[in-house]
Amino acid sequence: MTQPVFILVRPQMGENIGAAARAMWNFGLDQMRVVGPRDGWPNERAVALASGAGRLLDQAGLCQSVPEAIRDCTYVFATTARARGLTKPIVTPERAMEQARAIQAEGGKVGVLFGPERAGLENEDIVLANATISVPVNPEFPSLNLAQCVLLTAYEWRRQGVDVAPEVMEMAGTEFASGLELEKLGDHFEERLEEAGFFFPSTKAEGMKVNLRNLWGRLPLTRADVQIFHGVMRQMVRWAEKRRD
Amino acid sequence: MTQPVFILVRPQMGENIGAAARAMWNFGLDQMRVVGPRDGWPNERAVALASGAGRLLDQAGLCQSVPEAIRDCTYVFATTARARGLTKPIVTPERAMEQARAIQAEGGKVGVLFGPERAGLENEDIVLANATISVPVNPEFPSLNLAQCVLLTAYEWRRQGVDVAPEVMEMAGTEFASGLELEKLGDHFEERLEEAGFFFPSTKAEGMKVNLRNLWGRLPLTRADVQIFHGVMRQMVRWAEKRRD
Repeated sequence: MTQPVFILVRPQMGENIGAAARAMWNFGLDQMRVVGPRDGWPNERAVALASGAGRLLDQAGLCQSVPEAIRDCTYVFATTARARGLTKPIVTPERAMEQARAIQAEGGKVGVLFGPERAGLENEDIVLANATISVPVNPEFPSLNLAQCVLLTAYEWRRQGVDVAPEVMEMAGTEFASGLELEKLGDHFEERLEEAGFFFPSTKAEGMKVNLRNLWGRLPLTRADVQIFHGVMRQMVRWAEKRRD
Repeated sequence: MTQPVFILVRPQMGENIGAAARAMWNFGLDQMRVVGPRDGWPNERAVALASGAGRLLDQAGLCQSVPEAIRDCTYVFATTARARGLTKPIVTPERAMEQARAIQAEGGKVGVLFGPERAGLENEDIVLANATISVPVNPEFPSLNLAQCVLLTAYEWRRQGVDVAPEVMEMAGTEFASGLELEKLGDHFEERLEEAGFFFPSTKAEGMKVNLRNLWGRLPLTRADVQIFHGVMRQMVRWAEKRRD
């Protein structure tokens, strides 16, 4: 799928431009435009801070104005911390990137405007946008910097698109134990614990055995785990026999 | 709901501790613990960078070890960029914070471990965790710094919990136009455009009128917008009449 373009409007510090480039590329976005950067273009500090994502800066389009930067965009979002007295939809980053994916999938082109560090976007920029993005921050402490805002928006783009399983099990060269292996483990423990007098008193023995079987069944044991438990029990038996000698 | 505790393990730069505190508080989290900070505690650079979120540092628990830091936690996540050859579930930040909410709601206590800047968590830390969190970054450029990792995890906590409508309309002192107002607007335009000879040729007039009515119906017009359109049309008529004089 084609990507939205992230447009930095009148950014001030080169460091922040570099950090924004890194944040974009962290989540696989590489189309950046820069409108009227305060310290000119190219910007050495931006390049220094972008380490690893410098390509985005090399390829970034330099624009004189926001209208020029959004010329080819069919839908524009403006990121802004606060309402500005304009009638306009306010969406979460989540909803915005969901819409962006839908628009890009239909052949449209989405632009996302990010304002300068201190002041944020001006109303004359915001009126050009179809909707504004507002991050659901703590109202007591809403300050997000430019690169953080870029990071969260780029994260939402990727989160909703990459087919990442929400949970996988890292198996470290092993696999889950089979039912037969668990059964044998249960047998081993039950047999040895029986000999050791664990199931006492006898009226409670059956319940204790059920609980122990349930434990082995419930735990997500790997074949390696099963071998460890067998080893533990074998060693305890060996140690007990040695003490008896 | 009670909150998870974010545990910074052997953090190095005070700046990063301060930035992590800000990132937590941006999303309403304020329970931090710090294990073995390299430059001692309290840390002046951390305090300087935390501006506005300094309370988190004042109240942060200083711990000598990870086991001490997670003593009261019933479920522990370790954030780590890469698999370490340990059999352990790997979850997305989204799933992790979903689980954390469920655990906290049941009266449990969740801890999230964040490793030192360069090296990340050691295996001896990770084995203490129930699961690892892996952010779905671009595999070609996976580097996230400590504060960014904290920011994304805290964002997911808040995103899933705060009852934020994904889209609202900022109305700027107006409200949407009623059906009657739209009908009158349609009448006004149709009448004036009829006089102006807009609906030509007559065989197409009906279709053109339908399209125009559809346009007024489809646009999300406010009462203020309706007044603007009325004003536009009135002005054009006035201008035309003046030219005729």
